[in-house]
Amino acid sequence: VARYDTITFLSDFGLADEFVGVVHRVIRRLASEAAVIDLTHQIPPQDVRAGALTLWRAAPWLGPGVVLAVVDPGVGTHRRAVAIEAADASVVLVGPDNGLLVPAAYRLGSLGRVVALTNPAWHLAGAGGTFDGRDVFGPVAARLCSGVDLVELGEHVDPLSLRGAPLGLAEGTPDEVADRGLDVEVLWVDRYGNAQLNVAASTLDALGSRPVVQIGPLTHTARRAQGYADLAAGELGLLADSTGLGALCLDRASAAAALGLTAGTTLRLGVA
Amino acid sequence: VARYDTITFLSDFGLADEFVGVVHRVIRRLASEAAVIDLTHQIPPQDVRAGALTLWRAAPWLGPGVVLAVVDPGVGTHRRAVAIEAADASVVLVGPDNGLLVPAAYRLGSLGRVVALTNPAWHLAGAGGTFDGRDVFGPVAARLCSGVDLVELGEHVDPLSLRGAPLGLAEGTPDEVADRGLDVEVLWVDRYGNAQLNVAASTLDALGSRPVVQIGPLTHTARRAQGYADLAAGELGLLADSTGLGALCLDRASAAAALGLTAGTTLRLGVA
Amino acid sequence: VARYDTITFLSDFGLADEFVGVVHRVIRRLASEAAVIDLTHQIPPQDVRAGALTLWRAAPWLGPGVVLAVVDPGVGTHRRAVAIEAADASVVLVGPDNGLLVPAAYRLGSLGRVVALTNPAWHLAGAGGTFDGRDVFGPVAARLCSGVDLVELGEHVDPLSLRGAPLGLAEGTPDEVADRGLDVEVLWVDRYGNAQLNVAASTLDALGSRPVVQIGPLTHTARRAQGYADLAAGELGLLADSTGLGALCLDRASAAAALGLTAGTTLRLGVA
Repeated sequence: VARYDTITFLSDFGLADEFVGVVHRVIRRLASEAAVIDLTHQIPPQDVRAGALTLWRAAPWLGPGVVLAVVDPGVGTHRRAVAIEAADASVVLVGPDNGLLVPAAYRLGSLGRVVALTNPAWHLAGAGGTFDGRDVFGPVAARLCSGVDLVELGEHVDPLSLRGAPLGLAEGTPDEVADRGLDVEVLWVDRYGNAQLNVAASTLDALGSRPVVQIGPLTHTARRAQGYADLAAGELGLLADSTGLGALCLDRASAAAALGLTAGTTLRLGVA
Repeated sequence: VARYDTITFLSDFGLADEFVGVVHRVIRRLASEAAVIDLTHQIPPQDVRAGALTLWRAAPWLGPGVVLAVVDPGVGTHRRAVAIEAADASVVLVGPDNGLLVPAAYRLGSLGRVVALTNPAWHLAGAGGTFDGRDVFGPVAARLCSGVDLVELGEHVDPLSLRGAPLGLAEGTPDEVADRGLDVEVLWVDRYGNAQLNVAASTLDALGSRPVVQIGPLTHTARRAQGYADLAAGELGLLADSTGLGALCLDRASAAAALGLTAGTTLRLGVA
Repeated sequence: VARYDTITFLSDFGLADEFVGVVHRVIRRLASEAAVIDLTHQIPPQDVRAGALTLWRAAPWLGPGVVLAVVDPGVGTHRRAVAIEAADASVVLVGPDNGLLVPAAYRLGSLGRVVALTNPAWHLAGAGGTFDGRDVFGPVAARLCSGVDLVELGEHVDPLSLRGAPLGLAEGTPDEVADRGLDVEVLWVDRYGNAQLNVAASTLDALGSRPVVQIGPLTHTARRAQGYADLAAGELGLLADSTGLGALCLDRASAAAALGLTAGTTLRLGVA
């Protein structure tokens, strides 16, 4: 039986209400030795995709341990609650089966055991069925740290029945990328205004040192850079971000604000 | 002597300034084994009522342990600093005697011992008397985790002299509610726009499955629901929220925004 | 060898992205026994001065332990990464050599050993060189808690070569202050709208009980107060704040909003 000592916690609860603290408190009662690390709780309310992408980005840093993730517009419905084990059992992801967990789970390698959280013995009796973070997911995450095995949590689930899919990145051979360019999408704009693209930075090597970025009717020339310091003031950079994806950046300024980029913006990269 | 190992911390300090971290740091020095769980620090500045309601909602999850609560517009005045023990000693609430602690204390059952924090031996020497969270309340919460008994903290206080009162909920017999309806008030709007009312959900059973909600001059028909999933798109729901109170909700949308509800809004519930 | 068990963490990462949580997770892997306390992560993006002032204010509460501070517009450039030990070894500050650490370091007393973080054995292999909080500073802070000595982190650095300087406060003898007044600057506006000035409160004793505050063309009369309670409604107060500096305050209202003060505003204090 794997036994974990760290829970990484993501939600859309925000920090103004008491939800996050109450879940911490419940876990403390059930697994006093577990450390609970807040990944973020400012996922926009009910934005499953934003939560899934955040977990995907953080995936390499989540183990060994339990991941507790709650962005759950279907709470109180018949959507399943699940626990997904990575094949090497380094990580168990606990949360709703709505696509939130699957991209991160696949980034950690092939899936191991998956169960639905159907055994009420490990849940709290809630007051209204509207706060499964407190009543189901948090307690289950805690139990995994106090020695309960995954199979005790509920019925086995076919991993292929899980909602969601591995994150699809834009791809192409170097020749294809150089000849035809690549249509990509902004996955995420971080606090500094860097715009992460859905493409591995290495795929962009074929674009050379001066890639062209076409956004709507406008065409910009960027510099392929190793870091912000390679960029002159106001010069658009294309670099490998801290998760290994391509990102559009300015030095000490927001590329997203300057170019009007938000999550979901599509753009085209090509050779000059 | 009760000895606690968990401090749940609420304040209006916000997270932009260093106040919260400094209090954590002070507690770490004085009681290195205690776990400090942040309930929220985004109570609106000096809004004692909002802080008191948040503690009230979280009360069932606060024990066993110490509650450190600081919303304190009277810091530096002669308002008392107090520690209130629940009758079963499962929880001690530490903070200013301004109404912040009392609703939660009564929700935990009858009050046990109450003391004023008049013994300076357990305080830090502060730089200006304007930051009692760091200099008085935080250190006292830490001492309670390192084995200091409540009576050592200062003089006994008559519980009836405490400021504030148990939270009053709207009440009525089923017949009264069905016949005359019920005037209620919005206590709180959460991040999702659910509007919590000052009435136990069970009291609303007498309204039947299609209660009428009168807000100002407008009358809406709601559906008494078990969960969000019972609601059609745009259909107003009245359900039991996660603290057992009635709440007005929409499925995946903000009822408060749609209806113009904020904390303090009064409305009337009745039978169709 | 000093061995620390607490890391106090400040950054400009914000709490919406996963950056803070990932750094916590990295530290947990490398030093599972260390407690990580968040001072704040809402320093405005890349505002080194605001970060340095926050560390300065918190300095008396930072030890014993490691301080991890990341406000780092120069990440990926040749700016140095450093660790600065207080002369009594009670604190080691880890972060970029850009002025962020030096004011707090000097407030802790004279500087002890200083090293550049040039030994890659203690770093993580990052994905892009753009997230040194995760890949360099966080791991180094963790190593200091797991028993690595400062000198193992990299090459010795001359403390005098560090960027930044001790915080300069406005000063004057009592006679000078009473005769000529004092030009001061707003260092910081806190959540409550109190405006901290760059002058020790004790220096202002020479101004008497009714100091004059000149802001641009307007002159206000303040009351030298011990606490907010000394102030009538709407009366401007000048008091010693919780770090021992002078601050302009209103009782239960924002002095900064009322007077149009922000960090950097200059004003003149004098005798009535």
